[in-house]
Amino acid sequence: MKIAIVGASGAVGQELLRVLDQREFAFDEIRLFGSERSAGRKVRVRGQDVTIRRLGENPDDFQGLDIVFASAGAGVSRQYAPMMTAYGATLIDNSSAFRGDEDVPLVVPEVNGSDALTVPRHIIANPNCTTIQMVMCLWPIHQLSPMQSVRVATYQAASGAGASAMAELEEQHRQIARGEEVTVQKFSAQLAFNVIPHIDQMTDNGYTREEMKMYRETRRIMHSPDICVSATCVRVPVMRAHSEALWIETAQPLDLEDVETALRQAPGVEYYPFPDYPMPLFAAGQDPVSVGRLRRDLASLRCGLTLWSVSDQIRKGAALNAVQIAEMLCNV
Amino acid sequence: MKIAIVGASGAVGQELLRVLDQREFAFDEIRLFGSERSAGRKVRVRGQDVTIRRLGENPDDFQGLDIVFASAGAGVSRQYAPMMTAYGATLIDNSSAFRGDEDVPLVVPEVNGSDALTVPRHIIANPNCTTIQMVMCLWPIHQLSPMQSVRVATYQAASGAGASAMAELEEQHRQIARGEEVTVQKFSAQLAFNVIPHIDQMTDNGYTREEMKMYRETRRIMHSPDICVSATCVRVPVMRAHSEALWIETAQPLDLEDVETALRQAPGVEYYPFPDYPMPLFAAGQDPVSVGRLRRDLASLRCGLTLWSVSDQIRKGAALNAVQIAEMLCNV
Repeated sequence: MKIAIVGASGAVGQELLRVLDQREFAFDEIRLFGSERSAGRKVRVRGQDVTIRRLGENPDDFQGLDIVFASAGAGVSRQYAPMMTAYGATLIDNSSAFRGDEDVPLVVPEVNGSDALTVPRHIIANPNCTTIQMVMCLWPIHQLSPMQSVRVATYQAASGAGASAMAELEEQHRQIARGEEVTVQKFSAQLAFNVIPHIDQMTDNGYTREEMKMYRETRRIMHSPDICVSATCVRVPVMRAHSEALWIETAQPLDLEDVETALRQAPGVEYYPFPDYPMPLFAAGQDPVSVGRLRRDLASLRCGLTLWSVSDQIRKGAALNAVQIAEMLCNV
Repeated sequence: MKIAIVGASGAVGQELLRVLDQREFAFDEIRLFGSERSAGRKVRVRGQDVTIRRLGENPDDFQGLDIVFASAGAGVSRQYAPMMTAYGATLIDNSSAFRGDEDVPLVVPEVNGSDALTVPRHIIANPNCTTIQMVMCLWPIHQLSPMQSVRVATYQAASGAGASAMAELEEQHRQIARGEEVTVQKFSAQLAFNVIPHIDQMTDNGYTREEMKMYRETRRIMHSPDICVSATCVRVPVMRAHSEALWIETAQPLDLEDVETALRQAPGVEYYPFPDYPMPLFAAGQDPVSVGRLRRDLASLRCGLTLWSVSDQIRKGAALNAVQIAEMLCNV
């Protein structure tokens, strides 16, 4: 097994290395790729120094590889996917570049793992972090009764905008503590002591692209083209775990006890019984998607439920999910 | 006109003094009351030093007063309301003590101001901050078509827990910047770099008391006992303005343009047209409840809307609303 990581020095690239180690993912060789800025830097991997190669410099760099993990943004993935897959490697792509393409499976292993078995373009897309977290909660309930509608308000961490955005949030707080002017570069406004209801670009229907990802990707992953998702995506001054407040309606009424049991038994989900609840500060580095505050939706008593979920955005929202997909490919 | 403020040194008490000044509220005398801790301190009001009296020490302190503003917590209001109103003063109470009492009007002047004209117990309750902000958005739409259901996720500032909670949040960030251990006293966990989906006590149905306030108070203020509100109330590391993501369903379908016009014309509401939106960092000290990101609810296309609102919790959420009630009483 020979693998590569494109975007090796980013927040997700670094987490990929950690997850591969923690899960003892077996490989014979690993190649790391980065931009011109990080090319030449050495990264310690399993006792050996691996030099980051400059992506695109030599197309033959992708010869002999089985799996390429890419997390360097949609533009990079779109440009270099043909190069990455030219010699037969499967690209597991963390960007949004191919998530809408019908011939690219969009995979959350616990939900639609078998979709990863058909890869005509040798590309598998990792869904958006907010969608992964959400479908992990929806799927066990969907087994009890088909999901009809979802309203979701997110509380998204700085990490979703990359390592430099996390650094900016920390720096903003240091600047405020010192009474200095605050630097704003990565977000549309100061994030420290603020929340920003604007992630990715606005679209014509008034939703942002981030919000429409949750609408479209949920349908694809769950093979349920009728589920209606209305999202409000909000950046909050948290470092790396996302939270989501969900209201869901199912076709038939469900007993809360049955839903609780389904969530307890769902792989990759950690259920917090009343009155406990998960919080993002304590989710960093955790694998499971945590769910709590399950209760009836008072606005839809018959078939409505509401719940709260928290997940490490870099981990299950990105690196862990990608490695789980790779593990599935190895076990085929 | 003779007035008093109970809880004069708290966050809301201090803001009451500012709002009274800014609105040039005419009074001949002002008396300030506080706990044993703040009694004896002097506060500068309109060029004069006013000494804070210890609440309860002398019942005759309330003789001759017309209006008493109280914001010292539900326990204090419950204990001292008889004393405050014994000589005929009207108590405008910021606590939750009397909000559920049928013989105590619960008033947002722009919505149900005339309810303040009947005060059998000489008490008017100021609603919870999250409810005031929400009904300010719901009411103009309710005039177009009756409100049926509301789902709301809140992003609540530290100020809702008082001045000491705001200080704790700032101190937590200073401690983190200095690499020190973080002090946690006012919230159930560290709030810096975190969000906490737990405000006020949990109740048997899985909702918190804060969330059930939004359910019950909305019905009372809007005189609409059928509106169903499902809230998830979350504390975020913001200083003093609350944000709310709302999904609403009305009896009849509405044109977005009509809703936009209604919100633009609503007194006390500032409408942000697409692609603008309000944020809490910039709402501190602002009077209007700001509304933006109005769009169709994709989970309920026929009669559903979703929108985003921001409001200074200490101002319209507490002090300003109380002073507006007092202004109405003066103009009767």
